[in-house]
Amino acid sequence: MKAEIITIGDEILIGQVIDTNSAWIAEQLNLTGIKVAQITSISDQREHILNALEEASGRSEIILMTGGLGPTRDDITKETLCEYFGTRLVFNQDAFNNIERIFRLRGFQITPLNRAQAEIPENCSMLLNSNGTAPGMWFEKDGRIYVSMPGVPFEMKSLMTDCVLPRLKNLSPVSIYHRTILTQGVGESFLASIIENWETNLPAHIKLAYLPQPGIVRLRLSASGHNLNLLMNEVNEKVNELYGLIPQYIFGEGEDTLEKIAGDQLKKRGYTLATAESCTGGYIAHLITGIAGSSAYFKGSVVAYSNEIKENILGVKPETIEKYGAVSEQTVQEMADGIIEKFRVDCAIAVSGIAGPDGGSDEKPVGTTWICVKTPLGSITKKFTFGEHRGRNIRRAALAALDLLRKSDGVT
Amino acid sequence: MKAEIITIGDEILIGQVIDTNSAWIAEQLNLTGIKVAQITSISDQREHILNALEEASGRSEIILMTGGLGPTRDDITKETLCEYFGTRLVFNQDAFNNIERIFRLRGFQITPLNRAQAEIPENCSMLLNSNGTAPGMWFEKDGRIYVSMPGVPFEMKSLMTDCVLPRLKNLSPVSIYHRTILTQGVGESFLASIIENWETNLPAHIKLAYLPQPGIVRLRLSASGHNLNLLMNEVNEKVNELYGLIPQYIFGEGEDTLEKIAGDQLKKRGYTLATAESCTGGYIAHLITGIAGSSAYFKGSVVAYSNEIKENILGVKPETIEKYGAVSEQTVQEMADGIIEKFRVDCAIAVSGIAGPDGGSDEKPVGTTWICVKTPLGSITKKFTFGEHRGRNIRRAALAALDLLRKSDGVT
Repeated sequence: MKAEIITIGDEILIGQVIDTNSAWIAEQLNLTGIKVAQITSISDQREHILNALEEASGRSEIILMTGGLGPTRDDITKETLCEYFGTRLVFNQDAFNNIERIFRLRGFQITPLNRAQAEIPENCSMLLNSNGTAPGMWFEKDGRIYVSMPGVPFEMKSLMTDCVLPRLKNLSPVSIYHRTILTQGVGESFLASIIENWETNLPAHIKLAYLPQPGIVRLRLSASGHNLNLLMNEVNEKVNELYGLIPQYIFGEGEDTLEKIAGDQLKKRGYTLATAESCTGGYIAHLITGIAGSSAYFKGSVVAYSNEIKENILGVKPETIEKYGAVSEQTVQEMADGIIEKFRVDCAIAVSGIAGPDGGSDEKPVGTTWICVKTPLGSITKKFTFGEHRGRNIRRAALAALDLLRKSDGVT
Repeated sequence: MKAEIITIGDEILIGQVIDTNSAWIAEQLNLTGIKVAQITSISDQREHILNALEEASGRSEIILMTGGLGPTRDDITKETLCEYFGTRLVFNQDAFNNIERIFRLRGFQITPLNRAQAEIPENCSMLLNSNGTAPGMWFEKDGRIYVSMPGVPFEMKSLMTDCVLPRLKNLSPVSIYHRTILTQGVGESFLASIIENWETNLPAHIKLAYLPQPGIVRLRLSASGHNLNLLMNEVNEKVNELYGLIPQYIFGEGEDTLEKIAGDQLKKRGYTLATAESCTGGYIAHLITGIAGSSAYFKGSVVAYSNEIKENILGVKPETIEKYGAVSEQTVQEMADGIIEKFRVDCAIAVSGIAGPDGGSDEKPVGTTWICVKTPLGSITKKFTFGEHRGRNIRRAALAALDLLRKSDGVT
């Protein structure tokens, strides 16, 4: 089965908004085993919508539309759909009850414009939008499926997750099973060379995708077939093999983040943490405190951007900085000791590096970074050489530091 | 003139990559006075490319393509373009010289695959890609313009800026002038109500667009006409009026950021800065240290995530926290005093708030945030009530704090 995604509205065409909806829908469809043939963004004009529908239905069996359903511009998209399907708008009581419910929640009065949102083409089945007033619509015609959804991301996502994807899955005799393994600290091409044999031996119905982000490479295994239990067993076995091959790089699966996993470990042990950051400039503390509830284990941080602060606040010895430099094994170790003592915590992360673009030398080029992690279970100090891009160096140093903290826990 | 953007390649269709290129191109075209009629993402298959070109040329005069020009999949896009235009690939010496130059820089040997990148359709003019090995291509046929560019964002952007946009501008008899004014601390609808009269009185050829981001609303004025000098004068006059209407909200223009502007002010005064952060968890320090050269004025930060750290490191009095709470005017003032004393700096930002989702009360709901800014020129302490979303509260608190620092400088 092939699908197309059509985005209706001017925001994307004038470059005001980046089309994240289509990427999300495309990923979900792919995970369901449905190939996306085309993604199209058009303006909310009658002829343009009719034309796009006509073209898409010549190529694909499933056409998912987002946008153009707000109360003020309502008429164009829904009436155009009526025209395309040769039908008319009718009042839908369930959609209206939902609108009433949402207005009661927000304490607003319903206007005639809002009442019109409950009118939908007679030939569609209504998809209840629990997060908004514009109902989703599911059409079937000549063996094709057309779905219209609002463009507000969280309304669209819940409609997709609750209504559309389950129905699409039911249409397919094929089952899909996938797992996404997250790795840190290894580049895509080096990773590919390590797991080359394993990858070559994957059966034809199990596909591997490399999904790289700065500092992180996600490996997604997708299997399709007719027996879901069998697929699960096969994929899980392959994932176990992968854990055996690259245990040092895997930190989690799916939606895991390093800061969440490291934080959960601390919580489990009852340990507290503080960070002493130079080149990362507070970014590690920012990642950790992005997690609700992190105050249970995170006490705080000293961003020691100048040597003065490293000495006066963290107690790094001036001789250490003079002899070894601010970016050195000795300095990050003293930074870690200092933050543990001053903040009275169990664990510390200390980072000092040259983020760039200036400050590099032949001996210590831009990207050189020392990281020290100390916990009651042991300590590790390690040198990294990242790249030349300031923002990416900060991100990679923070992820490497969180990964060292995660690994410091050993097997529990 | 109308344009279309066609993205070639599977990464977007499987949802692996979000299509930021098209949004950027669309914005640039709009600023040049060219309307984007459609954005299309397709796979790199011959029939699909031919079909998309055919459809686009039926609607628009300018067709910009990105992607599908890498050395390994080279042939499909370029040969498909040859088929579409009824021409053949020829070797281009300038393109080859550029490839040689880039390989010398990277210290690599040229392979036959790379040499093939210098072959381009005979009917196009080559656009030199100074950042990569795949040349851009400009075609003209039957009154239409077709441009093919690589999909790597920074290669595409320099090709657009250096070659494509100047040529497109030359085609149009119409001049365009625009300025983008950046505001902080005011919602879109409230802003709209304050400047309603001013907006209503804009002449028809000057358009206003509201471009909201979390914490920031950009106001873009675009004027089109035949006399560029006149347009500039008109827009500049309207912008001056705007500065008179909402001086308290405007912090900059174009690509300015609050952290850059506040940093430049400090540098000019020769002042140093440190931050004492509770709910923002190091995010302000992260924004400031994202700027290369910030070490000239930024000494560091204490992230005081627990009351203990506020007391032991920043010297906040236990009685203050007990009597007024950690989220209070008195606490942030003592945090600011403490960081100035401990870090021996001229200026301080101190923030304490309830980021959520937990920790709120009737008296101090989630989103309640106190910010104190102290400089040798004076001090200000202010309470903000943001929303319920943790990530957005952190972002809005950081922007509000940087804006208070910026304003503390007065008129220089």
